[in-house]
Amino acid sequence: MNTIYILFLFTFLSTTSYASVNDLCVADFKGPSTPSGYHCMPLANLTSDDFVFHGLVAGNTTNSFNAALTSAFVTDFPALNGLGVSAARLDIAKGGSIPMHTHPGATELLMMVKGKITAGFMTPTALYSKTVKPGDIMVFPQGMLHFQVNSGVGTANAFLAFSSENPGAQLLDLLLFANGLDSDIVAKTTFLDLAQVKKLKARFNGKTS
Amino acid sequence: MNTIYILFLFTFLSTTSYASVNDLCVADFKGPSTPSGYHCMPLANLTSDDFVFHGLVAGNTTNSFNAALTSAFVTDFPALNGLGVSAARLDIAKGGSIPMHTHPGATELLMMVKGKITAGFMTPTALYSKTVKPGDIMVFPQGMLHFQVNSGVGTANAFLAFSSENPGAQLLDLLLFANGLDSDIVAKTTFLDLAQVKKLKARFNGKTS
Amino acid sequence: MNTIYILFLFTFLSTTSYASVNDLCVADFKGPSTPSGYHCMPLANLTSDDFVFHGLVAGNTTNSFNAALTSAFVTDFPALNGLGVSAARLDIAKGGSIPMHTHPGATELLMMVKGKITAGFMTPTALYSKTVKPGDIMVFPQGMLHFQVNSGVGTANAFLAFSSENPGAQLLDLLLFANGLDSDIVAKTTFLDLAQVKKLKARFNGKTS
Amino acid sequence: MNTIYILFLFTFLSTTSYASVNDLCVADFKGPSTPSGYHCMPLANLTSDDFVFHGLVAGNTTNSFNAALTSAFVTDFPALNGLGVSAARLDIAKGGSIPMHTHPGATELLMMVKGKITAGFMTPTALYSKTVKPGDIMVFPQGMLHFQVNSGVGTANAFLAFSSENPGAQLLDLLLFANGLDSDIVAKTTFLDLAQVKKLKARFNGKTS
Amino acid sequence: MNTIYILFLFTFLSTTSYASVNDLCVADFKGPSTPSGYHCMPLANLTSDDFVFHGLVAGNTTNSFNAALTSAFVTDFPALNGLGVSAARLDIAKGGSIPMHTHPGATELLMMVKGKITAGFMTPTALYSKTVKPGDIMVFPQGMLHFQVNSGVGTANAFLAFSSENPGAQLLDLLLFANGLDSDIVAKTTFLDLAQVKKLKARFNGKTS
Amino acid sequence: MNTIYILFLFTFLSTTSYASVNDLCVADFKGPSTPSGYHCMPLANLTSDDFVFHGLVAGNTTNSFNAALTSAFVTDFPALNGLGVSAARLDIAKGGSIPMHTHPGATELLMMVKGKITAGFMTPTALYSKTVKPGDIMVFPQGMLHFQVNSGVGTANAFLAFSSENPGAQLLDLLLFANGLDSDIVAKTTFLDLAQVKKLKARFNGKTS
Repeated sequence: MNTIYILFLFTFLSTTSYASVNDLCVADFKGPSTPSGYHCMPLANLTSDDFVFHGLVAGNTTNSFNAALTSAFVTDFPALNGLGVSAARLDIAKGGSIPMHTHPGATELLMMVKGKITAGFMTPTALYSKTVKPGDIMVFPQGMLHFQVNSGVGTANAFLAFSSENPGAQLLDLLLFANGLDSDIVAKTTFLDLAQVKKLKARFNGKTS
Repeated sequence: MNTIYILFLFTFLSTTSYASVNDLCVADFKGPSTPSGYHCMPLANLTSDDFVFHGLVAGNTTNSFNAALTSAFVTDFPALNGLGVSAARLDIAKGGSIPMHTHPGATELLMMVKGKITAGFMTPTALYSKTVKPGDIMVFPQGMLHFQVNSGVGTANAFLAFSSENPGAQLLDLLLFANGLDSDIVAKTTFLDLAQVKKLKARFNGKTS
Repeated sequence: MNTIYILFLFTFLSTTSYASVNDLCVADFKGPSTPSGYHCMPLANLTSDDFVFHGLVAGNTTNSFNAALTSAFVTDFPALNGLGVSAARLDIAKGGSIPMHTHPGATELLMMVKGKITAGFMTPTALYSKTVKPGDIMVFPQGMLHFQVNSGVGTANAFLAFSSENPGAQLLDLLLFANGLDSDIVAKTTFLDLAQVKKLKARFNGKTS
Repeated sequence: MNTIYILFLFTFLSTTSYASVNDLCVADFKGPSTPSGYHCMPLANLTSDDFVFHGLVAGNTTNSFNAALTSAFVTDFPALNGLGVSAARLDIAKGGSIPMHTHPGATELLMMVKGKITAGFMTPTALYSKTVKPGDIMVFPQGMLHFQVNSGVGTANAFLAFSSENPGAQLLDLLLFANGLDSDIVAKTTFLDLAQVKKLKARFNGKTS
Repeated sequence: MNTIYILFLFTFLSTTSYASVNDLCVADFKGPSTPSGYHCMPLANLTSDDFVFHGLVAGNTTNSFNAALTSAFVTDFPALNGLGVSAARLDIAKGGSIPMHTHPGATELLMMVKGKITAGFMTPTALYSKTVKPGDIMVFPQGMLHFQVNSGVGTANAFLAFSSENPGAQLLDLLLFANGLDSDIVAKTTFLDLAQVKKLKARFNGKTS
Repeated sequence: MNTIYILFLFTFLSTTSYASVNDLCVADFKGPSTPSGYHCMPLANLTSDDFVFHGLVAGNTTNSFNAALTSAFVTDFPALNGLGVSAARLDIAKGGSIPMHTHPGATELLMMVKGKITAGFMTPTALYSKTVKPGDIMVFPQGMLHFQVNSGVGTANAFLAFSSENPGAQLLDLLLFANGLDSDIVAKTTFLDLAQVKKLKARFNGKTS
């Protein structure tokens, strides 16, 4: 399984392709980024292959979420540079879920392919939640905290589209428990019990001071 | 202390609920549109159902294109108003195709679900064309003329995402032959033979003057 | 010559006064909002008073956060409509804090006026946190989860600026515990213990089912 | 087959005609404006005449500037609504000039048609100024204070383009001397002599208190 | 006091001169492009000459279109970098025309200088077409397929403005017939007869396979 | 299971850290700027210190304006790169003022901290002016000419926020009198007396030809 995983990583991380002036501005990762995206590859270097991404396949769901997100963001698919749209594939095994997260500044569309997913997003005063199945699209407006849970009897999968070529994925548990933030400050600014904070810090490899 | 807390919350929420008028701006088609989209429905009227679209199903391909595009644009799915993203489902029967067209100002992502599609877009000096299959995404950068042909042995279908909530679909044959433009002007500005123009005007119900 | 001049001016001004409809677009809350903001008040109705907001004063910190945010968002100060900037005043009593929250799509600047605040924002892999005092500005880039804690010996206050006229304030506890989301789903998608979820739902008045 | 085809077309067009609501958003001045522009006229009301403006003709230069600007801004030519571009015609008689002014947020292109114009724009530390003649274009980047003087032996005229459908024209003399600002404040914040301020206030019909 | 003033100025200007890096961002073609345009030349290198373009002159119309477009796009006139506007001059000899084309994402304004032009743009369901003469402006909204035909008794010319510094010009015949796209695919996705496709491929130097 | 989980996490983060290249784009001044801002520093180089600016302190008002503006623009505070917001501190001694100026394309918010300021902005036909004190915010919409005068009995100070990370400050006197523009042209295009122009050129160190 580890071997498979590594292969998956390789697909995930490696994306070599090429770019243009303005209509066609495929990212060149050799230079730095800018607030509007990466430098453009020279137009003369571009081929048809630059405009196709091959890795929108089922991810490995043998993990503690029982779920996998396979991304086709600009860092995976450089032709998306500057185009304001990207995609991903979501696979959730029975009982699995994609935990609470946000995409800062990007709207997400979830297009169901198979199975049943209960998903939702929240504002301080309202919950918008539904169970969706093939034929349905659910929208999670930009920046909203949201989740997806497999509520069916088998594996579920969906295609995702985002209103940004680089939507990121800010998983709440990683934000709170994985990056070294003091347990006391987490507790104080979330109203969670300190013991709960320490338990999750242990799980997500954050420091447990 | 709980009571005080509630009062504090109330003050806070009077702001956040107004703020949501923009975070959540589901289109209200009773009023006119604006350059940035439709008027927003009152926040209090929104329910979970507003954020789900149920019609991303196979379209009827029994037509002269042997193909169907089922759209989830803002006019179909009002929650997309102002969010800069939309979706569609593409079904192409064996031998069918989606003819040459553009989406003015919107990039298109084609995410293959089933079958084989040969697709491409053109600049004046280059052709970018590939045959794609499940697991592949092809991108058609904004405003480029492009086409999709079923090049497999059975039905093909794909999900599409667009970098606009209202990408339109400007089919070249409709632009040239269906809207009353004089045959002489079409011939002069496309270099097509006049007879060819008249033949296609007859087919696409344009006037044949 | 003066007469001629006046006539010339009149022609000129008929343009410039129309032009001001966009330069000056004070929100008219009688109509609906749009994705770009509210309708503009008629130019002729505007007075100097429309461009001044009087409420940037200390809020009441006698609440369970020991803190108050006094906002000057577009809904408080209609002249900000369409201008992409807003402000607020932050008061945190000794021991108080502004709990974890996001502003979807808005960057926040915190300009210290008095006292000491320990603040920070997190990505999945990094924590950016500092203690700031008068003379300092801290920036919380758009959409990032962040917090502010009074770490001084007395009251602290600061002025805030936002890169949106309507930044909202999505407090994490309200998103998770105040809007009716099932305790089971919260637990499953946050990895919090169910007992912890129920305890906080009770505190934030969410249903405790 | 034709019948089937027509049905297919109908489905297709119900989308594309809605889509055109945004592609074609001619201003309807009966409603209010918004930060992104005016409401759109119903698509069914539009005719070819909406997309042509007839008044790009020489203005009357018999005035104290010996110059005239004939505008084709959105308020003159409603089809420009939301399109981010507009135009004007500039006529300057011998000895005349367009006085110092800015277009807040719009870049100006000056395309010479006839005669000679000396034009320029300033930053606090630099002057960019040239004499231009037919065949030349000069650009005045967004928001910069600029001027145009006829430096030839006869009438000069030019076409202007702007990067906004509503560029306005903030003439410095009108800003300082025509709108009721106290002479004392003008003097204090411009370092002009009070007598000079009063003299120009008299000329531009500002109050002379 | 003058000395003190100068010191103050110096502090102030250190900011304003940096600020101009963005106000004035003339393209430096030695580096790559980005999604927002080219790198900026150092401010200290700029002179008045950078802001003037000298080539807006009549093009040579002795070609198969009997027409010429002389462009002042960012690649011709680097001062337009990042400013969202550009220009061109159109010359059409008697009997000539600018064939069907699009500018992806840019609106075009046609300002008539001399002669008579019949021009138009099409949506799938409507044609907007007019004959224009000096004094008229016609607008072609962003991304729309459009054409211009000399319908007068002599040469016609016009100035064009675009809502982009890099509008491109996607001529339909070049897209379909000049870049190597298979004749069979062209025929299938345009409904043109194969013989017609091959005839135009021969004319536009596309492969005739 | 924990081990597997960690592996999954790692995959996930490889994406999210790339994603952060855009979420966190601190300016790297070693490279050139672009129309959207400066190149981004490598994410791995960033520390908490990058997100705090320490210089928002009282400026020296011993100058001919009796005023100082201390800026926290992107060139002072590189973390603001691409974020569309910046800040400054304004100190005006008794009798002092910030003279007439514009920020091309940026709106300014003035948040009063101490004292009394009379401020205003002008359109060709209207003056919007008020005296503000602590607790008040005044807004100066984008590109408008405006001024601030200390109208109280002691020192005044305020915090400013701008809707751009690089608002600049185009002081009218510097534009007209400090950069080498011919006195004759200044006089002709402002209607100021030539003697007045020469007097101010002498004061602001412009050439007095």
